[in-house]
Amino acid sequence: MRWSTSRVEAFSDGVIAIAITLLVLEIGVDPADLADPWRALADQWPSYLAYVTSFLTVGSVWLAHHSLFSRLREVDATLMRLNIALLMLVSFLPFPTQLVADALTESEAAERAAVVVYGAVALSIELVLATMARHVASQPGLAGDGEEARAPGARKRGFLSVVVYPLAIVLGLLAFPDLAAFAYLLVAIRAVASAQGEGRIALARIPTD
Amino acid sequence: MRWSTSRVEAFSDGVIAIAITLLVLEIGVDPADLADPWRALADQWPSYLAYVTSFLTVGSVWLAHHSLFSRLREVDATLMRLNIALLMLVSFLPFPTQLVADALTESEAAERAAVVVYGAVALSIELVLATMARHVASQPGLAGDGEEARAPGARKRGFLSVVVYPLAIVLGLLAFPDLAAFAYLLVAIRAVASAQGEGRIALARIPTD
Amino acid sequence: MRWSTSRVEAFSDGVIAIAITLLVLEIGVDPADLADPWRALADQWPSYLAYVTSFLTVGSVWLAHHSLFSRLREVDATLMRLNIALLMLVSFLPFPTQLVADALTESEAAERAAVVVYGAVALSIELVLATMARHVASQPGLAGDGEEARAPGARKRGFLSVVVYPLAIVLGLLAFPDLAAFAYLLVAIRAVASAQGEGRIALARIPTD
Amino acid sequence: MRWSTSRVEAFSDGVIAIAITLLVLEIGVDPADLADPWRALADQWPSYLAYVTSFLTVGSVWLAHHSLFSRLREVDATLMRLNIALLMLVSFLPFPTQLVADALTESEAAERAAVVVYGAVALSIELVLATMARHVASQPGLAGDGEEARAPGARKRGFLSVVVYPLAIVLGLLAFPDLAAFAYLLVAIRAVASAQGEGRIALARIPTD
Repeated sequence: MRWSTSRVEAFSDGVIAIAITLLVLEIGVDPADLADPWRALADQWPSYLAYVTSFLTVGSVWLAHHSLFSRLREVDATLMRLNIALLMLVSFLPFPTQLVADALTESEAAERAAVVVYGAVALSIELVLATMARHVASQPGLAGDGEEARAPGARKRGFLSVVVYPLAIVLGLLAFPDLAAFAYLLVAIRAVASAQGEGRIALARIPTD
Repeated sequence: MRWSTSRVEAFSDGVIAIAITLLVLEIGVDPADLADPWRALADQWPSYLAYVTSFLTVGSVWLAHHSLFSRLREVDATLMRLNIALLMLVSFLPFPTQLVADALTESEAAERAAVVVYGAVALSIELVLATMARHVASQPGLAGDGEEARAPGARKRGFLSVVVYPLAIVLGLLAFPDLAAFAYLLVAIRAVASAQGEGRIALARIPTD
Repeated sequence: MRWSTSRVEAFSDGVIAIAITLLVLEIGVDPADLADPWRALADQWPSYLAYVTSFLTVGSVWLAHHSLFSRLREVDATLMRLNIALLMLVSFLPFPTQLVADALTESEAAERAAVVVYGAVALSIELVLATMARHVASQPGLAGDGEEARAPGARKRGFLSVVVYPLAIVLGLLAFPDLAAFAYLLVAIRAVASAQGEGRIALARIPTD
Repeated sequence: MRWSTSRVEAFSDGVIAIAITLLVLEIGVDPADLADPWRALADQWPSYLAYVTSFLTVGSVWLAHHSLFSRLREVDATLMRLNIALLMLVSFLPFPTQLVADALTESEAAERAAVVVYGAVALSIELVLATMARHVASQPGLAGDGEEARAPGARKRGFLSVVVYPLAIVLGLLAFPDLAAFAYLLVAIRAVASAQGEGRIALARIPTD
């Protein structure tokens, strides 16, 4: 009932890389609007904002995933199921991304619904990541010998997200959806900026790789 | 006429990872419906159901594929052709997924056709997987020395699917398409929940990898 | 001016895996046609034919690419450029695939144009593959020591394709486009069925991999 | 705060491979235009031009990325952030590619806007690549022992792009957008044609790989 880390990492990397690259498909200018091209391009600002926010959010998930798995010796059944749940949520993110991009130029009601859905998906991702880190910490056999089971920056990262995402959802419900969208961007930038490197196991593997 | 396991695994992982991630493209809210955003989001429930069902179905195929290939020493010509057939069916699954999502809010005739097509594709995937496992068991040279040729949970997994998928197809034909859609979800959850880990070869490979 | 085989293989595998999986995006039933679902599904037969043909065509390219690269020790500048040209053509194949699927239910003029374009792209892929094999054979330093520079079945495979594809293009021009579409399917089936395994280097690599 | 080169390379390869393969999705003939198929195919010339240009541009980025990373021993926090910025820009390129393809048959105003946006994204990619190379050169610990920190052809490649892209943007603004589109194609061809191989570390890694 154990899996090798490398195959699970390779599959996860594949899914995350595809989800992050599919985000661009939500951006597009209707050829009919090209009569006034600069205005048509400027009107796409919600798509650009949504693209950058989701790209950095997924990028930071990859960094956190990578950091966690670099500490592992093998993957057990619970971690495998949690990982599939994580990938299902990350692969789903292009949908709320499109929703936010479409809604920001629609009615305020649409905006509010969109940022609430976005926040709920982002928060779920964060909670699954935190559950994965907690599970690894609770199973000493999973992490490599002499390795800290928990990545140094993981707790702080999770804490910020778990506070800001619910706050942003409330902001969205209370009629400040633009503020919520901005908060998602800031959390993503912060998460990428503060990401930690790998544990010692992974670095030790380099020479033989 | 032999291939190394690692290249075939890497290509299969790539195709499966892309097929699983493309599933999200079927989900979308028409911007014109965003005037009543929560209702528009709720009306998408068949898309969410289809997404989760197909994600878990493809995820369980990846787990079964992984489990089988971790027992192999090399890939022969028959297994290579069976693997290409498996990937062709898995890559095809986004089409019946979209079909079910579209049909669940259409007429009952549409629903019935959609769940029958979905079940036929899912059953074909299961039969190809079972044929692959049977072929490996019949060719002692393929599996590693001292390795059980057949993955421990594979037979039970296959048995459940091979019973439930035809039943669900019959249910779909007999005018209970919603029940069939629900059965596909349950089979997928069961398959992910009961997936077995790798054989000993793969675990033995970790330190040198 | 040399590249390691493994990175070029990994990138090529990625591009080929994505191109083969994107093929499914051309298949779809307009929800408006779901009133008569079985007929709508049956009317999609050109999409199914095009999907299977292109999936097997790209699959056979992967097999040939894999067979060639398993014989290499390193990649030189010429082979790298040829490989980029090959990937550009393989990634392009979803376009003529969609074209054939759309055209088979349109006018015969459309069918003829579509099968000619499809044949031209498939023939170009074959010619680039043959040029790559010829280049490897002419540069003894590229293939591993004691390794046959040319894969055993490559010449026969190339010969068949280089005869059939131009014939099919002529058939398409001369008003038998359905025959041409059928020929593409047969060539693809034949190419997958007759693909050779890896050279000895790759197999020798397995234990240490 | 360090990452192993291999995982970052694998994730980057994945994102670049997907971005390069998604480019084909911008090409398509409206089935309604298939009444006059050859003309409809010929009218798609801007899509073919945009496809080839972007495929070679992304291909040359992969070659430059590969060349840089083959010289590295590990990845530090700054390089990781720069790499995420690079991937964000490369993944974004399908959007201006589609824009140029759509605009070349629209008004000249549309063409000019499209080539300016394309040039701005391509120039940004080039500047991030140059910043990455400069950072590696300034941190002796990142590159392998006895390895030239800077790839031999990187400076010349960057120089050409950094001169031609701004010139093409000015050409686009000054009403010669076709000339700018042609310049992008030439830069991409030149970049692929002059790409350098790997550093010595990577080649030395081959036998043990």
